[in-house]
Amino acid sequence: VTIHRPALLLVGYGNVARRFVRLLDESRADLDGLGIAPYIAGVITRHHGAAFDQAGLSEAQIASRLSGQPGPTSPEFIAASLDRLRETPLCVVVETTTLDIRQGEPAISHVRAALAGGADVVTANKGPAAFAYRELSRVAREAGRSFLFEGAVMDGVPVFNMIRETMPATTITRFRGVVNSTTNFILTAMEEGEPYADALARMQDAGVAEADPSLDVDGWDAAAKAAALANVLLDADVTPLTVAREGIGPETGRAAAGARAHGRRLKLVASASGRGRDAAVKVALEELDPADPLAILDGQANALEIDSVPLGRVVITQRDGGLEKTAYALLTDLVTAVRRRAGAVA
Amino acid sequence: VTIHRPALLLVGYGNVARRFVRLLDESRADLDGLGIAPYIAGVITRHHGAAFDQAGLSEAQIASRLSGQPGPTSPEFIAASLDRLRETPLCVVVETTTLDIRQGEPAISHVRAALAGGADVVTANKGPAAFAYRELSRVAREAGRSFLFEGAVMDGVPVFNMIRETMPATTITRFRGVVNSTTNFILTAMEEGEPYADALARMQDAGVAEADPSLDVDGWDAAAKAAALANVLLDADVTPLTVAREGIGPETGRAAAGARAHGRRLKLVASASGRGRDAAVKVALEELDPADPLAILDGQANALEIDSVPLGRVVITQRDGGLEKTAYALLTDLVTAVRRRAGAVA
Repeated sequence: VTIHRPALLLVGYGNVARRFVRLLDESRADLDGLGIAPYIAGVITRHHGAAFDQAGLSEAQIASRLSGQPGPTSPEFIAASLDRLRETPLCVVVETTTLDIRQGEPAISHVRAALAGGADVVTANKGPAAFAYRELSRVAREAGRSFLFEGAVMDGVPVFNMIRETMPATTITRFRGVVNSTTNFILTAMEEGEPYADALARMQDAGVAEADPSLDVDGWDAAAKAAALANVLLDADVTPLTVAREGIGPETGRAAAGARAHGRRLKLVASASGRGRDAAVKVALEELDPADPLAILDGQANALEIDSVPLGRVVITQRDGGLEKTAYALLTDLVTAVRRRAGAVA
Repeated sequence: VTIHRPALLLVGYGNVARRFVRLLDESRADLDGLGIAPYIAGVITRHHGAAFDQAGLSEAQIASRLSGQPGPTSPEFIAASLDRLRETPLCVVVETTTLDIRQGEPAISHVRAALAGGADVVTANKGPAAFAYRELSRVAREAGRSFLFEGAVMDGVPVFNMIRETMPATTITRFRGVVNSTTNFILTAMEEGEPYADALARMQDAGVAEADPSLDVDGWDAAAKAAALANVLLDADVTPLTVAREGIGPETGRAAAGARAHGRRLKLVASASGRGRDAAVKVALEELDPADPLAILDGQANALEIDSVPLGRVVITQRDGGLEKTAYALLTDLVTAVRRRAGAVA
């Protein structure tokens, strides 16, 4: 078996990236079995400087070498960092910086710089697919590189990968899903009478809610995911700004509890139908029949229902979420990128 | 883009195979886009002779050339047929013969003959994976060929493909599912008070129930699917004969209606936990909580819940079943087999 040794350049080094580094170690034997032996050639951060070592950096080495000084995560610095790796046959940028969900930046610029520098790029960020999927996927295709973002929706549960790798010759006509964990948790709690603020505080304490909770509760996160899904699955060309968007607030509690009292569930549903220019994408509160696969989602569970030809209606459900799952999404995208470059048999 | 032109040898030409031939035509443009232009080089049947044409056979040509005379579907005839195609760089056997679910034959012998003859093999049959997964997957691996059977469980909904292609470096620890449409349909009908015999007759009229209904209602079909899943996902080495098996009958109606009256659902659940020699595999009636993702399955819907490290609990649900979906499973397996042989970028 040929062993491929992708050099990884981590752009951003927050909780997800650190969990990814540990997961790489934990998955070493499995990755060996797939003929993939990645090493961390560099880490670029915004607040703690950068570290490089062509011999590979361990988690401890990264911690000790990052300076604690503000560092550059600019596209120019990514380009310069990739230039240091130009002798490396296989370089993958792992992008996990904090996203401005209303602009998609800086992730979009990072992805652009990575592809321009000859690297494959995997990201946990929704921004690039939500704002610039057409451009970035075209650039990647022309460069013969991958642009992958499985972690953008439902963490590590395969959504984009499932459809791309295992559902060839399929046309998707419609999707609907519960894709934001914080709002689903709050809605579930409010059904039981818990005040909105208490439920939101619990999600913030658990590190699940966005630092700015309005990104969750005003539907921005769900809208960004809906835009990414619509752009990829329905060949749409929308952004989160053009998605019809509804959120939840303290006043939603009465409706949630009322629905529950009638055996029904109030859910924040991201959905789209139609393809291309005709795709209509929205995030809206919907009262659902109790046997609806979206209605049974308690707490942080997510699910996506897809209608397709010829496969009909398929639902994929994530019962557990969290940081480790997002890190796993990056790992699966890394494997896909390397397989493609290697033209390898899986 | 390189165009790959796999020669297909169809072994068996019943409803699924005929639907597959039409689906190939319907999917021609999509397959072209993937760089795959399959043609039917031969058809072997048990009751209607055989037909061969290296220039490719259309659905109409197959119909006119099959003789109506009993024909050979023996391993020897498959070997001889593949020998005729020995100049062809890429040959895929599409196996869809009628299965003896208690033996796994003749599908197992067909798969063996196909691999020995240098072909990749895709099958809609449960038998080979349920009875002989270890042997056949080893033979395929050593020959550098594919042995694929997505249609064996949940028709065309990706189960095996999803886990193999999109969940690398994952360890599955447990699964449970509703995987037999006929029994789920009957249980749903009996909850509403419909007599067992009437519901079964409806499934037979619809062509969903096995010709010998005991294969469905006595749990054999579910046991074969459970064995295939356990062998592939849990590295077990079981057969349907060693799966603890329960079925349904007219007397199950009272329990189903009783559960429903309490807001719960009675389901025939195929499940397994533990890995390798420790895998415990069973098919059993279980009364489920209404929010269980298996409980919400009405009529012919199927679902499979998987527990894995590090991804946690994931559920995939098939809301629509049927012949076309099984044909689609063969098509996806064909695409996977060709991609692997081509070492192609997806």
